[in-house]
Amino acid sequence: MMDLENDLAIGVDLGATSMYAAVVDVTTGARLGEAKSKTRADLGAEAVTARVTKAVKSAIKKSGAKRSQLVGVGVGVPGPVLTQQGVVISLTNMGESWDSFPLADQLTYGLGLPVTVDNDVNVGAVGEHRFGAGRGARDMIAMFVGTGLGGGIILNGRLHAGFRGSAGEVGHMILQAGGVLCGCGERGHAEAYASRTGIEKAINTAIAEGETSVIPELMEAEGRSILVSSVLDRAYEMGDAVTVAAIHAAQEYLGLLIASCVNLLDPEVIVVGGGMVERMGDAYLVPVREVAYQHFLNKNDMQSVRIVPAELGDASGAVGAAVLAYQRLG
Amino acid sequence: MMDLENDLAIGVDLGATSMYAAVVDVTTGARLGEAKSKTRADLGAEAVTARVTKAVKSAIKKSGAKRSQLVGVGVGVPGPVLTQQGVVISLTNMGESWDSFPLADQLTYGLGLPVTVDNDVNVGAVGEHRFGAGRGARDMIAMFVGTGLGGGIILNGRLHAGFRGSAGEVGHMILQAGGVLCGCGERGHAEAYASRTGIEKAINTAIAEGETSVIPELMEAEGRSILVSSVLDRAYEMGDAVTVAAIHAAQEYLGLLIASCVNLLDPEVIVVGGGMVERMGDAYLVPVREVAYQHFLNKNDMQSVRIVPAELGDASGAVGAAVLAYQRLG
Repeated sequence: MMDLENDLAIGVDLGATSMYAAVVDVTTGARLGEAKSKTRADLGAEAVTARVTKAVKSAIKKSGAKRSQLVGVGVGVPGPVLTQQGVVISLTNMGESWDSFPLADQLTYGLGLPVTVDNDVNVGAVGEHRFGAGRGARDMIAMFVGTGLGGGIILNGRLHAGFRGSAGEVGHMILQAGGVLCGCGERGHAEAYASRTGIEKAINTAIAEGETSVIPELMEAEGRSILVSSVLDRAYEMGDAVTVAAIHAAQEYLGLLIASCVNLLDPEVIVVGGGMVERMGDAYLVPVREVAYQHFLNKNDMQSVRIVPAELGDASGAVGAAVLAYQRLG
Repeated sequence: MMDLENDLAIGVDLGATSMYAAVVDVTTGARLGEAKSKTRADLGAEAVTARVTKAVKSAIKKSGAKRSQLVGVGVGVPGPVLTQQGVVISLTNMGESWDSFPLADQLTYGLGLPVTVDNDVNVGAVGEHRFGAGRGARDMIAMFVGTGLGGGIILNGRLHAGFRGSAGEVGHMILQAGGVLCGCGERGHAEAYASRTGIEKAINTAIAEGETSVIPELMEAEGRSILVSSVLDRAYEMGDAVTVAAIHAAQEYLGLLIASCVNLLDPEVIVVGGGMVERMGDAYLVPVREVAYQHFLNKNDMQSVRIVPAELGDASGAVGAAVLAYQRLG
């Protein structure tokens, strides 16, 4: 049933807990065959690479694609990469066996296909640009708000990797000099305010300072020792003042971050994805836009810089990785 | 004496108080003929345009260049421009007659040469990239610290204008959410901290709060009612604690601003120019680098992002304007 004219590539989103591989038609974005699997990071880099190989083979088989139709494999990983060499620098959440691990070579050895590797946020940005909320834009910035706060930059239609391959670290732009400590060890960075971790920290601080919140009793009712998303969502729906204030602060900081990026780069569109936005949708972005627009220096035409939710959800990584594979290996 | 193979363009730096025109050899950066003149902004846009025409003709005459060697004219102006149309949007310091003024058309009418217009900071960035401290870099950000704080971005060797032509506004990136009021009307922007205006504001605040400073007596001795550069420099040399603290704070904020830009774009080099840096030289950048490097997310290789003083001084605008003319009109 395959059209021999199709341009196909395989995209893999390799996360710390699960992996997802898909054969992607890079002209339409359609996923023709897919495979999911646990990552089992505890087994180490070599064993995980074998599991990726298996998932890719399974996705190819399900797609019915012929080898000759496949340009190659793109992989997004949760950490920094030497892109040109296809070598992982480190994956903090997946153990030391990933330090300087030659993932591209190892996968090529197992699959007999060329492989390119990049970080998960960059491949997500490419996915949203090619087939998601940033379609058709020349310049775009994607931001993903989850436990952390990452970003990817598209300039002239292509991923902007930067001189050292470390562009797009929006979470470490400074919004509050001398402010809250960030996970990176420095103070005042966007991630310490606008990420889910920042929201949790603000809630914990408020509770520690004696403010009343339903959070402790919700956690006890659910038998949780950590503040999981479901508890956060429930507290927000209940109108818990501490939770609402913490989320609103995170939205304001995200608006300031977007304004900083727009005043610097003046892109056509800012695409915002990640857990917080996926659950609340465009409603999450209403106060974000208000703050951002207020701080745009060029206000004359401010409606023209769109701030929109991501469209591809979890699939952005695999789809974007496939697009990158097509661009780099095709 | 002219080499007929030379590629020549005229660059004009049009400021609120003076203008400078130069015939530039865009392959070497050499200025072959130049003319300076008062701007006389009080006369209005049409009369100033006539003065620019005269300065350009004078520079051409002094250069000995033939008309056939001249690709066109580039003009840098102190405010926003519709680049494609060559229309000035507004020049706040030069009066309302500049609102929507078709400068490129008016100059072409008087000179018989094609004309391109951009803002002064963008042309300065192009000058520093082509012949100054950013030579050979693929990606570069220039920042000019004066009364205000402006920037220009070079990506893939070319000026990055942005979707609405308003990229590079580093002075309006947020560094201190809810902080000091900026000239633009919003709070916490870099310009309110890291510019000369920010330094003055910090000094005035400290004195108003009762701190002891030599500034008031230096101003009286010089018969000044405003804090001019010479007074600021003298107070700094004398080790006046209020002045030293204010300048040091500005340097720290500039370091944070550079870190935000590097974490977002990961360029090869940051070039810093403008009055403060021209007077103090590389010494101004020592504490700036320290703060910036501390906040780089990618520290492994941090020495590779250079933070250097501009090299062309006052000439960067005219030289860059000539280079832009060559790129756009050649």
